[in-house]
Amino acid sequence: MTIIMFSGEMDKAIAAFTLATTAAASGMDVTIFFTFWGLNIIKKNMFSVGGSMLLMQRMFNVFSTAALPVSRLNMFGLGPWMMKKLMKKSGMASLGDLMKLARQLNVKYIACTTSCGVLGLDKAALSDDVDEFTGAASYLAEARQSKVNLFI
Amino acid sequence: MTIIMFSGEMDKAIAAFTLATTAAASGMDVTIFFTFWGLNIIKKNMFSVGGSMLLMQRMFNVFSTAALPVSRLNMFGLGPWMMKKLMKKSGMASLGDLMKLARQLNVKYIACTTSCGVLGLDKAALSDDVDEFTGAASYLAEARQSKVNLFI
Amino acid sequence: MTIIMFSGEMDKAIAAFTLATTAAASGMDVTIFFTFWGLNIIKKNMFSVGGSMLLMQRMFNVFSTAALPVSRLNMFGLGPWMMKKLMKKSGMASLGDLMKLARQLNVKYIACTTSCGVLGLDKAALSDDVDEFTGAASYLAEARQSKVNLFI
Repeated sequence: MTIIMFSGEMDKAIAAFTLATTAAASGMDVTIFFTFWGLNIIKKNMFSVGGSMLLMQRMFNVFSTAALPVSRLNMFGLGPWMMKKLMKKSGMASLGDLMKLARQLNVKYIACTTSCGVLGLDKAALSDDVDEFTGAASYLAEARQSKVNLFI
Repeated sequence: MTIIMFSGEMDKAIAAFTLATTAAASGMDVTIFFTFWGLNIIKKNMFSVGGSMLLMQRMFNVFSTAALPVSRLNMFGLGPWMMKKLMKKSGMASLGDLMKLARQLNVKYIACTTSCGVLGLDKAALSDDVDEFTGAASYLAEARQSKVNLFI
Repeated sequence: MTIIMFSGEMDKAIAAFTLATTAAASGMDVTIFFTFWGLNIIKKNMFSVGGSMLLMQRMFNVFSTAALPVSRLNMFGLGPWMMKKLMKKSGMASLGDLMKLARQLNVKYIACTTSCGVLGLDKAALSDDVDEFTGAASYLAEARQSKVNLFI
């Protein structure tokens, strides 16, 4: 399975990592290709980004793993806080837990170099879990051989 | 064909059900896996949800089949109203019609139990058309055997 | 590869055309099926639409190729302007360049007739690059034979 993680919202990330970990647990090879806003999910934090970043790049980088918005009813941060509460209450794994599990199950992370260039992100700004920094051609090589390909 | 119905917007639901009914009419097996905001599409109404629902869960449940937003130019409800008008004018089937047709063509509905737990939705809150309440593993079992898999 | 281009945002269009041109350059057959807001990407301009358009249809047609929003941090047009700047600075091809390249590489454009009807768009309103005006059945016929199918 391959997932293009384009969106940077907490709810979509939870959906992607639930699918990725479930697939990997059942023996499938899973690759997640992080691009555009999806890079926020694997960004260390909004202050880890290099000092040479342009003001415009900084503005596009206000979100990071610790503070992802939700795609509906975000309500200036109340939405994500409520969603985390409800997930905990119903015994569901948090996004952080799902991401740890994904790595234990050998889910492969690719970070899109083109997007990194536009957003001013270098390797140091992203999680050490990233396996490859590469482009769309690598994604397509894997997708062509996969049974399930999703754009999230 | 499988469709993960993650979004709860009217325009995306129309796209999903147009694809689902067209595929089913041509003889394909079609499964729709409703999760997160997509559950709003098969929720009876916003008042059908159980009295034991938490306030936070209620806030996430303001949308239902009868009142879905659109993903662009929602304009506090004017967008969906205009879209319904225009669809009728151009002779296009409404979302309600497409959903009825989907069931006549045996499109299978799966409701994601994990999302139901987080959002506080029980079986009674959702449409009687739901065939299965289950998780990501069931979806993946079907997706692996499908020719077309979409995340909407 | 097939792509359903449902969204009309600049960032998602860039992702779609980057994938489409990369796939086509490596020898794959690529079809893009433009529907709903995705039609904005191939609309000549917001003034090219026929004079017989209803006011409601005009309201849904405020976006066109020259002025697409971005899906996050749009900031009333500042977001798209910043993104174009940053793409140019990092040496990335613009959306216009990617679209020209797509046509040189024979990426096929299908415009969804149902959506055109709802939005009041006729052939004259859309780019001359459109190869076919047709519906979901044509899309599915291609998707069933494709290795990679994405909904963007």
